[in-house]
Amino acid sequence: MKKITISEKFELFTQEWSPKIIAESNGQLVKIAKGSGELVWHKHENEDELFIVFKGQLTLQLISGDIVLNTGEMYVVPKGVEHCPRAEDDTHFMMIEPSSTAHTGELKSEVTVSLEKQEWI
Amino acid sequence: MKKITISEKFELFTQEWSPKIIAESNGQLVKIAKGSGELVWHKHENEDELFIVFKGQLTLQLISGDIVLNTGEMYVVPKGVEHCPRAEDDTHFMMIEPSSTAHTGELKSEVTVSLEKQEWI
Repeated sequence: MKKITISEKFELFTQEWSPKIIAESNGQLVKIAKGSGELVWHKHENEDELFIVFKGQLTLQLISGDIVLNTGEMYVVPKGVEHCPRAEDDTHFMMIEPSSTAHTGELKSEVTVSLEKQEWI
Repeated sequence: MKKITISEKFELFTQEWSPKIIAESNGQLVKIAKGSGELVWHKHENEDELFIVFKGQLTLQLISGDIVLNTGEMYVVPKGVEHCPRAEDDTHFMMIEPSSTAHTGELKSEVTVSLEKQEWI
């Protein structure tokens, strides 16, 4: 394995809310994504989801209130907790989650990117 | 859980090569550490170890060659692979690894910080 320069990986794609896989560790995948606007409300019944923001602002809307993450901030959405990410334009963030984690949980919407379609970059 | 501002967590301690725990996700701990100089050669028989550098330069010395990580770069040391981290002065980095991961693997040296002594901050 070569080292990974995270900013270079973000230059390899433009799609929003479309996670790309950059590494695997202990059965968990390290994914990066860009976003602007809102994804959809969903939950992951069996997986915690770790978010780290590298650029911009990502708001994790939870039933209990908004978690507003700026560059250099992180949060873990616990398994079973409903959430809906909302991002400022051109926000860059990382997610670390088990390889079993479905993009929008049990919800299948037109924005859902299935696990099979989440490519390694 | 509150959001975590990673840079603020680094301000809470000064010890080098002494991992502090800032989050847990799916049985893995998110740890941050500061370093300068060299730790010791060791391996983790059963755990991959993910490194992300937030400040400075961390070199992961491997038998196969050095992996030099600057700010914004990451690497996964696979389970069973001998490594010895070396850092420029005041380097800040994150490690994500299973909660079972011993600091310096099976090696117990004077620099080893046991799991019990790795505190949450």
